[in-house]
Amino acid sequence: MQKPFEIEDFVVIDETAPVANDTHGGRAKCLQRLIRLDLPVPLTVALSFATVRRLASGGQVDTAAILRNFGAAPLVSVRPSSEDPDWGGPGAILNIGMNDARHAELANLLGHAAADRLYVRFVQTYSVQVARLDPDSFEAPDDPDGSTLTAMLDAYEAEMDEPFPQDPARQLSDVLKSMARAWEGTSARLLRQARGAPAEAGLGLVVQRMAPGMGPPESGSGVIQFVSSDTGLPQITGRYLGQSQGRDALFDESAVYLTRDPRGPSLEEMYPEGFDRLMQYGATCRQRLKEEMQIEFALDAGRLSVLDAVRVQRTARAAVRIAVAMAEDGAIEREEAVLRIEPGFLAHLMHRQVDQKAARDVIATGVAASPGAATGRIVFTSAAAQAAAARGEATILVRRETSPEDIRGMHAAHAVLTERGGMTSHAAMVARGLGLPGVVGAHGIALNRRARTLTTPDGRVLNEGDLVTVDGTTGTVLAGAVPLLEPNLDDSFRTLLHWADEVRDIGVRANADTYAEAKMALTFEAEGIGLCRTEHMFFEEDRLTLMREMIFAETAEGRAASLERLVPMQVADFCKLFEVMAGRPVCIRLFDPPLHEFLPQSRDGLRDLADAMGLPLSRVTRRVEALSEFNPMLGLRGVRLGITMPEIYEAQARAIFTATIESSTPEMPVVPEIMIPLVSAKREVELVRGRIEGIAAAVRSETGASFDYRLGVMVETPRAALRAGEIAPHVSFLSFGTNDLTQMTYGLSRDDAGRFMSVYVQQGIFTEDPFHRLDVEGVGELLQLGASRGRAVRPDMKLSICGEHGGDPESIAFCRAAGFDYVSCSPFRVPGARLAAAQLALRDKEIFSRPLID
Amino acid sequence: MQKPFEIEDFVVIDETAPVANDTHGGRAKCLQRLIRLDLPVPLTVALSFATVRRLASGGQVDTAAILRNFGAAPLVSVRPSSEDPDWGGPGAILNIGMNDARHAELANLLGHAAADRLYVRFVQTYSVQVARLDPDSFEAPDDPDGSTLTAMLDAYEAEMDEPFPQDPARQLSDVLKSMARAWEGTSARLLRQARGAPAEAGLGLVVQRMAPGMGPPESGSGVIQFVSSDTGLPQITGRYLGQSQGRDALFDESAVYLTRDPRGPSLEEMYPEGFDRLMQYGATCRQRLKEEMQIEFALDAGRLSVLDAVRVQRTARAAVRIAVAMAEDGAIEREEAVLRIEPGFLAHLMHRQVDQKAARDVIATGVAASPGAATGRIVFTSAAAQAAAARGEATILVRRETSPEDIRGMHAAHAVLTERGGMTSHAAMVARGLGLPGVVGAHGIALNRRARTLTTPDGRVLNEGDLVTVDGTTGTVLAGAVPLLEPNLDDSFRTLLHWADEVRDIGVRANADTYAEAKMALTFEAEGIGLCRTEHMFFEEDRLTLMREMIFAETAEGRAASLERLVPMQVADFCKLFEVMAGRPVCIRLFDPPLHEFLPQSRDGLRDLADAMGLPLSRVTRRVEALSEFNPMLGLRGVRLGITMPEIYEAQARAIFTATIESSTPEMPVVPEIMIPLVSAKREVELVRGRIEGIAAAVRSETGASFDYRLGVMVETPRAALRAGEIAPHVSFLSFGTNDLTQMTYGLSRDDAGRFMSVYVQQGIFTEDPFHRLDVEGVGELLQLGASRGRAVRPDMKLSICGEHGGDPESIAFCRAAGFDYVSCSPFRVPGARLAAAQLALRDKEIFSRPLID
Repeated sequence: MQKPFEIEDFVVIDETAPVANDTHGGRAKCLQRLIRLDLPVPLTVALSFATVRRLASGGQVDTAAILRNFGAAPLVSVRPSSEDPDWGGPGAILNIGMNDARHAELANLLGHAAADRLYVRFVQTYSVQVARLDPDSFEAPDDPDGSTLTAMLDAYEAEMDEPFPQDPARQLSDVLKSMARAWEGTSARLLRQARGAPAEAGLGLVVQRMAPGMGPPESGSGVIQFVSSDTGLPQITGRYLGQSQGRDALFDESAVYLTRDPRGPSLEEMYPEGFDRLMQYGATCRQRLKEEMQIEFALDAGRLSVLDAVRVQRTARAAVRIAVAMAEDGAIEREEAVLRIEPGFLAHLMHRQVDQKAARDVIATGVAASPGAATGRIVFTSAAAQAAAARGEATILVRRETSPEDIRGMHAAHAVLTERGGMTSHAAMVARGLGLPGVVGAHGIALNRRARTLTTPDGRVLNEGDLVTVDGTTGTVLAGAVPLLEPNLDDSFRTLLHWADEVRDIGVRANADTYAEAKMALTFEAEGIGLCRTEHMFFEEDRLTLMREMIFAETAEGRAASLERLVPMQVADFCKLFEVMAGRPVCIRLFDPPLHEFLPQSRDGLRDLADAMGLPLSRVTRRVEALSEFNPMLGLRGVRLGITMPEIYEAQARAIFTATIESSTPEMPVVPEIMIPLVSAKREVELVRGRIEGIAAAVRSETGASFDYRLGVMVETPRAALRAGEIAPHVSFLSFGTNDLTQMTYGLSRDDAGRFMSVYVQQGIFTEDPFHRLDVEGVGELLQLGASRGRAVRPDMKLSICGEHGGDPESIAFCRAAGFDYVSCSPFRVPGARLAAAQLALRDKEIFSRPLID
Repeated sequence: MQKPFEIEDFVVIDETAPVANDTHGGRAKCLQRLIRLDLPVPLTVALSFATVRRLASGGQVDTAAILRNFGAAPLVSVRPSSEDPDWGGPGAILNIGMNDARHAELANLLGHAAADRLYVRFVQTYSVQVARLDPDSFEAPDDPDGSTLTAMLDAYEAEMDEPFPQDPARQLSDVLKSMARAWEGTSARLLRQARGAPAEAGLGLVVQRMAPGMGPPESGSGVIQFVSSDTGLPQITGRYLGQSQGRDALFDESAVYLTRDPRGPSLEEMYPEGFDRLMQYGATCRQRLKEEMQIEFALDAGRLSVLDAVRVQRTARAAVRIAVAMAEDGAIEREEAVLRIEPGFLAHLMHRQVDQKAARDVIATGVAASPGAATGRIVFTSAAAQAAAARGEATILVRRETSPEDIRGMHAAHAVLTERGGMTSHAAMVARGLGLPGVVGAHGIALNRRARTLTTPDGRVLNEGDLVTVDGTTGTVLAGAVPLLEPNLDDSFRTLLHWADEVRDIGVRANADTYAEAKMALTFEAEGIGLCRTEHMFFEEDRLTLMREMIFAETAEGRAASLERLVPMQVADFCKLFEVMAGRPVCIRLFDPPLHEFLPQSRDGLRDLADAMGLPLSRVTRRVEALSEFNPMLGLRGVRLGITMPEIYEAQARAIFTATIESSTPEMPVVPEIMIPLVSAKREVELVRGRIEGIAAAVRSETGASFDYRLGVMVETPRAALRAGEIAPHVSFLSFGTNDLTQMTYGLSRDDAGRFMSVYVQQGIFTEDPFHRLDVEGVGELLQLGASRGRAVRPDMKLSICGEHGGDPESIAFCRAAGFDYVSCSPFRVPGARLAAAQLALRDKEIFSRPLID
């Protein structure tokens, strides 16, 4: 970016000085804003990023010239000023300029005690942080005096072979250089990159006249903010400590409260006038800076200075409350409120959370697969989880990995923990769908299913029934029960999302398979169901038996007979879904998984099945072996099953249409969307379409009822995307299943990728896990090709994505740019998606792409 | 196609009549050519496709007008004339025009016996084929007489309630209609479509004056050809039978040989002048029609007629010999010889074949996965195959499916038979690579490994050691030993391919992994190795142990130590390859398979491994479980292993470079091509490239030798094709691995596709198995995108394909059109690929796209 002004080495901050976030850092800019608001900020000089960078690489700056701004006997502080305050920086250094002469002078002016403490503090800080001497040699008592000072100066001289530097210019020069170098150190760099800073992020420094906060009565320092960091509600918080500097008040138990201190007079009571002025400053910041600020202040013989102000730290809940309250007060626009909340943050509001204040005994870590926290007794089988649920006990289901057979166990459990798998493993996907906290791929744990024990990476052995807490937000597992915070979907949250909906221009639906999930989708105000997987309708206890009968049937007629008995159950399922969605669209994916998922794999399971079905074990084993696959992901599933065993889709279509008729009212007709999975050739679509039309005609003629429906394709193979043009004439919508599409585009199984994904992301081979963030370059090109080819043939083609990516803001941005109609994601991600979509729409309007204040 | 003339309902064929293959059919056209050559063809009238089509749908043709061409008492035959003689057609009908009056007349002219036989033959044919009466009622003795005739006429009248039709025009009309309708019947349609005819293929009919072949002495009919159908060598073949019509001579044991009949006088001896004329006709056809023809002739009182001539039927071997001989004689151009041979036909020449004359007892059928035939004793384990090989016994390895652990067993066996898998299963691919006959996916068989028995679909139980013959050309398994024909790579074959190489404009390399396969590649004159898979270099007995040590090593150093011991063995492998290829390019693919392929899966295998490695069984089991994958095809393999365990590629690069130096001579430097598999991101290429450059530098500095090499990428994921533009700067070649690319584009595992592929192809969902013929629309688009994006960045980028498709003519056509440099396929498919490529180049030259004769 070209700068509109020349950057000097340093500049005195006044109302018009050329100071900006990206040249001098956020703190320098904020101080200028405070000056413009007439707040009593002590004289401050800002050093530019370029200056600091030069210092770090051995260059100089004219510190004598800087100090000339502060008069003959300067006493100053230096604080870091990075572009974004969240990126951190070296600690502040106070009382630069203290030397023997100044010490004597201040002893007269402020008293011996104050002068000693000012000098001791500086010598200590300088020795440890600048000269890098052993901190143990410079420990100071709470109440230092002249002897402490003498000892420290001696210690310095002994270590450095020179007396403590007396020249303020030399002192400042050393301080600035050490801070500049600290910023370039490896750990600081890694730390700020972890917080999202670019590798070349700059650091500015601000040199400010000290408000000593010591000496005469009515001297001290404090910190004040006007809202609660936890809740965002108005609440005066902070501390004040007499005879102190900087943020000392926050770390001293004797510091007084700002109002209503039960232990004695509060700041308000001691200095009502100063308190009132601080209150005014807070209100001014809120109105003029359009932000809730935390203010650092000092009193010197009753004279109030504002040394610094930073954005109030806040939880997700507080952030939403603050933004909504400011918009409701007119301090900011509603759109600005919508823009201020990080969409990913909303997830924190929708789950119970581990109370971060509680003690944590981490026994394992893994992938943070599904947010939220839960405490329960560990169980190693779905059966145990169900049994415990029947007794009303909370359990944590621990598995090597989960399979569809575990779904009932996961429904029964309060959280899931697996040894294997990544963000898009079966366990992770189901957990997110169910809103169940989940940690997956906890590689260090060892399960012994026979002994029913879990051994942690540090060798502790847990038995079935032991209590643990799974924190799916951070990917950790904690020993025992840990205090949890309840989720809080408050009015502010709803208000913010309604504002978001007003500007949003891409739809947001939820992936929901069951009545319970559909209810959750409605709670989060999804516009419909974008992906209803129908597998579970075949897995439940009574249905699984019929499904297995079908698999062992010798003929198409035998299969049809088993399926026919499933139809009424599925009609009931669909009716419930349609009723809860009350006319909103429901997109139903036809049967997708390979049949072997319905059969047991273990010897015991096979024996039980043979007994239950009255078949010889050898026949059951043979069938299971015949159905097993080398690469199930690429095998006989989806539309391939629909073609080779047409009875399955026919039964499903019959159930859907019957439910459609039952659930429709004249005012609110149900128009189901039927989606064909795993298509790779147009002829697959033609064939299935023909059969579904046949069933629709049959149901219409049998019932005399009329109904409408839409047919679409789930684009999950690269070929379906490439051939969208010839598929288009047969369907009215294309929904991109980006999970599978990503797998096939990369040739990478999401279940097996966990073993090397972290290496790949760390080494920058993939900039992000492509199952987490849409690969815009590769998979994205296929989406664009599919979309444009589909629309070229059918301009009204409805386009969407329904993979896990549906909830990711960057992926939403891509879909929006590509002209998609909606995204669909897990119910819990719907609020984030609504917000992200709104922010994208707002950023397209120029007014909201500029900073609000300068 | 627009016709240059108006098509009449029928036309008398003379030298200038408007008759063409696509209006009147091949027989009509051929007869016109014979007339132009002054051969004594009886008067012939041709009915056009349009006429016949009209007849089939109930229309009429003026048969009286047709018959007027044949005089007052016409006696004619009708034969079918389809566009391509291979498409078949209804049988000929002779003696139309016979009625009571004509019978009396001919009794005078030719004698009673001849007149009876002519009439009987017509009544019989008409009743059964035209009137569709019960054949049993119209059986005639070998030597019919007047009573036979009367009985037949009575039978006709009894069945039809009318006397046998006497009007020749009515007779002809009925015959023409019945033949027209037969052509439109379902079974005829299916039959000709199976032979490659389009659905709407037309039928013409030819009406020819009968040469009765009966009556006076020196009357009869016969068939003659001048080359052997089996070998293609000059040889007069055929039969002549006095007092016969049509092709009777071929079906009567008393027919005489044309020359040297040990049983009595031959045709040559009986009618030397007629024989000489037939010899002249054959020579004329060869020179002027540029084809070896089989001639159907008749003698009537010594007068010779040529009734018909068709292309001599021929085996693949004969086809090659005939084409080469004709070109060498100057009868056709060399290019024409090249164009005449179907490339797929060549495969029949390169393997032993079951003698089709032998009795066949088929015990199972499956996919014809690898051509050729072999007889041996069945074994159920690789170990048994190896043991038998050591004893010099031929075996057939029978497995449920094969895995890399079976490779040694497949090397030892003479053929392979599997219960599961398709054209691109492991067993099929390895078998084709080894030139080993193979039948895979023989679903009906049941293996009992414990009892060591194979149960056939019809319930026969074979024990280990029983003899069977596997016919991989037809996909059948025969009981016992069956006579086999040896392959014959004769001079004509080599000559034809050298002519092909002269016009070919796309390279053909072979996929060859071992010394033996490289030798085979050279035998078939491949230009180099396009894909050398290096896995086998890790699987052989002594190496497998080191490989397993590496897998169980705890550290990168431990892995490197195991690999270091493999390097000298691999250097020897590469040296042998480079030496046999003598300077031709060798493209080496770096290690590709997942590590679990190197570990046993069975309990016994695990126990043995634990013992051998001195590790606890639990540790071995845990490692095996940790490495197991849900979808190995999409897992930790290829470059992903190369990145996460860099030691493997580094050891391979070291072995390749060391062998390069050892094998290079100043006159013939070796320049290896190194190919990175399973790439999906450019950064993978950058990283591997950096490491390989490092090893090259190290080897150069250690040895002081200089060498050159090329680096390339195997494009197997859709993403690599899409991102070819950003991969291109790092590599000098892109080789498309169309097997994997097809799997990922379709989301379809080749190993699992067998279970439904046949249904898919039958229902026309896939027009062809995409693993067999390149999917031009989907996979092909990715090839084109990858090629054009790669070349846009690097115009000299070398492009190739190295999947199974490399040998398929249509796929070669695609690659040639896309500007690829070469294709690479199994050694046995190299000759076919060379020929197919030459034909493509020739077809692009206009002169060879026109028919040679008219």
